[in-house]
Amino acid sequence: MRRTLAFGAFLLFVQLTFGQSISSPSGRLSLTFFLSPQGIPYYTLRFKGKEVILPSRLGLELKDQPSFLENFTVIRTDTASADETWEPVWGEVRKIRNSYRELRLTLQQRLEQPRTLVLTFRLYDDGLGFRYEFPQQPHLTYFILSDERTEFALTANHTAFWIPGDFDTNEYVYNKTPLSDIDALSAGKSAGEIFTRNPIGKRAVQTPLLMKTTEGLFLVLFEAALVDYPAMCLTLSEREYTFTSTLAPDAVGNKAYLQTPTRTPWRVILVSDRAIEIASSKTILNLNEPCRLNDVSWIKPQKYVGIWWEMHVGRASWSYADTNSVRLTDTDWRQLKPNGRHGATTERTKQYIDFAARHGFDAVLIEGWNVGWEDWFGKWKEEVFDFVTPYPDFDLDAVQKYAAKKGIELIMHHETASAVTNYERRIDEAFRFMKRYGYKTVKTGYVGRIIPRGEWHDGQWMINHYLRVVEKAAQHRILVNSHESVRPTGLHRTYPNWIAAEAARGNEFNAWSRGNPPEHETILPFTRLLGGPMDYTPGIFQIKLDYYHPEKKEQVHTTLAKQLALYVTLYSPLQMAADLPENYERFLDAFQFIKDVAVDWEDSRYLEAEPGDYLTVARKAKGRNEEWFIGAITDENARLITVRLDFLQPERTYTATLYLDAPDAHWEKNPMAYRIEQYLVNYQTALKLSLAPGGGAAVSIRPATAIEEKRLRTY
Amino acid sequence: MRRTLAFGAFLLFVQLTFGQSISSPSGRLSLTFFLSPQGIPYYTLRFKGKEVILPSRLGLELKDQPSFLENFTVIRTDTASADETWEPVWGEVRKIRNSYRELRLTLQQRLEQPRTLVLTFRLYDDGLGFRYEFPQQPHLTYFILSDERTEFALTANHTAFWIPGDFDTNEYVYNKTPLSDIDALSAGKSAGEIFTRNPIGKRAVQTPLLMKTTEGLFLVLFEAALVDYPAMCLTLSEREYTFTSTLAPDAVGNKAYLQTPTRTPWRVILVSDRAIEIASSKTILNLNEPCRLNDVSWIKPQKYVGIWWEMHVGRASWSYADTNSVRLTDTDWRQLKPNGRHGATTERTKQYIDFAARHGFDAVLIEGWNVGWEDWFGKWKEEVFDFVTPYPDFDLDAVQKYAAKKGIELIMHHETASAVTNYERRIDEAFRFMKRYGYKTVKTGYVGRIIPRGEWHDGQWMINHYLRVVEKAAQHRILVNSHESVRPTGLHRTYPNWIAAEAARGNEFNAWSRGNPPEHETILPFTRLLGGPMDYTPGIFQIKLDYYHPEKKEQVHTTLAKQLALYVTLYSPLQMAADLPENYERFLDAFQFIKDVAVDWEDSRYLEAEPGDYLTVARKAKGRNEEWFIGAITDENARLITVRLDFLQPERTYTATLYLDAPDAHWEKNPMAYRIEQYLVNYQTALKLSLAPGGGAAVSIRPATAIEEKRLRTY
Repeated sequence: MRRTLAFGAFLLFVQLTFGQSISSPSGRLSLTFFLSPQGIPYYTLRFKGKEVILPSRLGLELKDQPSFLENFTVIRTDTASADETWEPVWGEVRKIRNSYRELRLTLQQRLEQPRTLVLTFRLYDDGLGFRYEFPQQPHLTYFILSDERTEFALTANHTAFWIPGDFDTNEYVYNKTPLSDIDALSAGKSAGEIFTRNPIGKRAVQTPLLMKTTEGLFLVLFEAALVDYPAMCLTLSEREYTFTSTLAPDAVGNKAYLQTPTRTPWRVILVSDRAIEIASSKTILNLNEPCRLNDVSWIKPQKYVGIWWEMHVGRASWSYADTNSVRLTDTDWRQLKPNGRHGATTERTKQYIDFAARHGFDAVLIEGWNVGWEDWFGKWKEEVFDFVTPYPDFDLDAVQKYAAKKGIELIMHHETASAVTNYERRIDEAFRFMKRYGYKTVKTGYVGRIIPRGEWHDGQWMINHYLRVVEKAAQHRILVNSHESVRPTGLHRTYPNWIAAEAARGNEFNAWSRGNPPEHETILPFTRLLGGPMDYTPGIFQIKLDYYHPEKKEQVHTTLAKQLALYVTLYSPLQMAADLPENYERFLDAFQFIKDVAVDWEDSRYLEAEPGDYLTVARKAKGRNEEWFIGAITDENARLITVRLDFLQPERTYTATLYLDAPDAHWEKNPMAYRIEQYLVNYQTALKLSLAPGGGAAVSIRPATAIEEKRLRTY
Repeated sequence: MRRTLAFGAFLLFVQLTFGQSISSPSGRLSLTFFLSPQGIPYYTLRFKGKEVILPSRLGLELKDQPSFLENFTVIRTDTASADETWEPVWGEVRKIRNSYRELRLTLQQRLEQPRTLVLTFRLYDDGLGFRYEFPQQPHLTYFILSDERTEFALTANHTAFWIPGDFDTNEYVYNKTPLSDIDALSAGKSAGEIFTRNPIGKRAVQTPLLMKTTEGLFLVLFEAALVDYPAMCLTLSEREYTFTSTLAPDAVGNKAYLQTPTRTPWRVILVSDRAIEIASSKTILNLNEPCRLNDVSWIKPQKYVGIWWEMHVGRASWSYADTNSVRLTDTDWRQLKPNGRHGATTERTKQYIDFAARHGFDAVLIEGWNVGWEDWFGKWKEEVFDFVTPYPDFDLDAVQKYAAKKGIELIMHHETASAVTNYERRIDEAFRFMKRYGYKTVKTGYVGRIIPRGEWHDGQWMINHYLRVVEKAAQHRILVNSHESVRPTGLHRTYPNWIAAEAARGNEFNAWSRGNPPEHETILPFTRLLGGPMDYTPGIFQIKLDYYHPEKKEQVHTTLAKQLALYVTLYSPLQMAADLPENYERFLDAFQFIKDVAVDWEDSRYLEAEPGDYLTVARKAKGRNEEWFIGAITDENARLITVRLDFLQPERTYTATLYLDAPDAHWEKNPMAYRIEQYLVNYQTALKLSLAPGGGAAVSIRPATAIEEKRLRTY
């Protein structure tokens, strides 16, 4: 619909005459809802008095039933407000404030058989959440959604940080372009390093979508509490800067199968003139349901190492043999000829357990322990893994005993190869198997095309699957770290055993493709991480990969110091020290930071940031005595960052250990050059951190000991 | 491809010059295989020297790989023959002879990367089976079938007994027309009584397909051992009388996902000039793999009654309440208002158990015992049943105790509503639940559209599902009676716990639709039953259904005596006395036949038959002393049937109890009129049975007692 001046003026008139408005608690944001004369619902959003979302339509198309698009009247209006504080089981902060104003409109649609639709708007100081609710009612019970028609009408040609909309993957590199230049089809097609990809269309992008206006305002379009519904991408209209919701279909083209009473996820618009407020927003979490688990004592953040990176760099293989065809039902695994490069052997696992025990890690992940890896990839094979049969060189009992003796936990690996019907058939046995052998955390994977064939990673069926796994895991007291799953939308508030997800381009892409550009990690906290923590697997010290093979040209696009900083800038309660133990042993002084850094936080301060350029974060460890950690990262440009330590307690002296890029460090030319310095600091100190191109700095701060107070220089 | 005279002559020349032939053991059938000059494989079949299958192509289309269509050479030829006898666990006969000649051709395809295809032909005196085999080989491991191109080129415009080809249902009424008049689309569309139907196309028909030539020759096109492959329909070409295989696709349009070494099911052509040889053919069974279960002692044929028909005639409901929307997760079943018509109550079940015990039945089926029936139908709902939660008025423990006390087994009902992903997630728990409560047999159902959405009842994924269920059931010592599943193809030889299936239009259609015409049961033994037994659920005595409600116009299209005869003419190791106990109690004299009839046979004689018209079968009970049962049925025409009892032992006298149509009986006007007569008979007796229109006759024969020899008249 052409947003001519005339039409815009008309809408404004209707809005002013008939609209209903609420303001956020501080008054910074205000929302107006109104119905057009045809009974079409619209909303609009203002930030400090200026429109950021022009009048945008709301509505839904139903299949074989009248749609929810027009002919509405408001039969009831409710307002509410809340201001409470709650504590997450784990998180970036101990306490979270949930303060909002709510406007709830009950709409009735004028039909022969009238129907009711409820629109709920919840307005925070940093954003708006709204959703459609379908109450129990006589003329609407079961219905099929053929489309959702939620609009987000933007005011101008903002700069967008986008990845192609794709119902199968989020693993793209970010593009930063004006909205008018979005060509997701080109970007999607050229991403050959992503095996399972299906860019939706030229103007279709993924959420969360970050934008920056010419006035320096930041906007994010996203969703919260994605339950029993497909994930939402956005399609930009050709004529103006309006996005429309684009939902993942199922195998036969329907979007969702719904039964009243039900509701959609929250559609979320974050707004701030400060990027750091976006990154530290708690609105997505606040919109989610409270924790549903009665007992959470078994849920613990953890640091882990694992048999993983060596496969990605080609030093070891997931598979045991080199045959190209196996069968779960009748391959005699002991008869296969081992390829001699199998990663997950009993011996290698014990080495990792030793390393973990020696350096204070919680757990060891073992990938490739179970049969089926010889032909798992790219065949769309259904009976691919059974999750219970180890290879001949992996002794489950011996590993379990050894880990228990050393006090180390084990992380199970359930690569499903996206054969989800196979996984669902076997999952009960697989979870019982895990508990029997002492595995408390599972890393799941969804590499490849989904079976049920025709379904998408982001469709309603798979959304329900991910939650079925998490709920069943909770019954077994299992933590879930899901890879290649849908991007999280804050559900870890409700299910805190869903401890992390991948659902974006992680560190592994550096091992075998053009990798992640230096700016990548300066974008993630403003997009992907808004919905939940990411198992990014940082901590690679051996940055150039020709170390493993002279022909191997890839590298991690980073300096070593930046890899340390990521443990602070990329929040996750589950953090991997991803490199090989042998590499850490070469740089034990730098490794000390990873050993020291916490994974659960009392407080977090996003100190300064420009998405795509740089980010500095300081966090206070939970359950320790006044320990702080700082991470600062930059893109391909060198940068001098000033960090004021005014968050420290005024009357104390601290020891700060600085892990810095060497003066001549450079992500490409000299990535592994670093220096470590130690100083006394206090709340008045302003650290000056010099970041190399593609570099970073990591600082650990704790109360100074008496000896340190004597010996160390003050910064 | 136009089968011009010239082309036909050319093929004949090639065939004669280059073809390889085998004959069946008696020489009655002969098969010739040859390759055309382009290396296209052909086969042709002769019966007593005359062609019944003209040269027909063989081949397969692969996706994204070269197809298996042409450019073949024969690199190896093997022949074999077998003549063995084996015993089924249960069946129509005690011993089955397996006598065939085999021709096995290893073809190599001339490609840059050569590939191998094996064609195996097994020739019996009553039919041909052939299949494609894909050996393990360097250039073919994983492949996707986009189509199979097997032809069956018939010689003329035969009369066909057909139902529309449909990947979701076999529940059509049969049509008897010349091939040229097949309009499956019209027939399919007008079958409004079948809820989930999707006729494939105008010329597409289901297998098994029965045909009769003008010379009185019978042909059946079918398949055997349908494993890991989609089911096969047939599409008639527009120009000549050639059928081509039409496989059920998956959700994305592919036919099958295969991994070498593997093979297709057997494509089967039965040929005989006697209809009774078709009905009694053992070729389908012989082509199947031998029994795979180590212990079969727990597998027993049975007769059962059940809470079932009263729902179909509207006297009771499956559901407990009349709400239109429930949820497994949070509906409080005890809070629902009962509709007062729930069939599966503890009380009603005990009545059935009493009845079963009193009359010597083995088991009671209970449908509607478990929550979810209020909104199960037509919503494409996934979380529809949990298979473990009873309604408030069904006491699992009480029923179990009562049945055990009375020595009656219970038959579990697992209506999946085609939400197969839901069933597969819950089946382990459901089977353990069954064993805990003493249920040894399960009747499964697949009413509605399949979930995974986009899949078909007859697609490869569902074929694999049915077998997964049967295999898992075998592990739990559970017998499976599957309804709305794929039509059987003899796999009960390999898995004798797959005791019956529906997969055709059963007796229930008479309860709420235009029903089954009188000829229906005279066709089934020549089509559907060739692949395996059918749970037809005969035995309805209260034939006119206005008995239940004056407005109810439906009736079973039968006489009462014919319902008795069906226990003999429709072979099944699982037979239901389908009517209400109250109705049997009104006609206990007639009911005696159902009580007496056996369900497992020493021997079976198909005495005379004309498909679509009449059928007479005599069977000898296994494990009893010289007991025989005879069933004779007719279509809408009255008939006088002569049955010679020359299968009896010569030196003995028997008592024959004849259950006959009354002289004035008529399926429509006077269906429940019957008479019972008793005589002495011997091997020289020729019974003359007068069948009413839509009628039948049932005879039970056993050695005469001394008193009977004195008192009864000789026939």
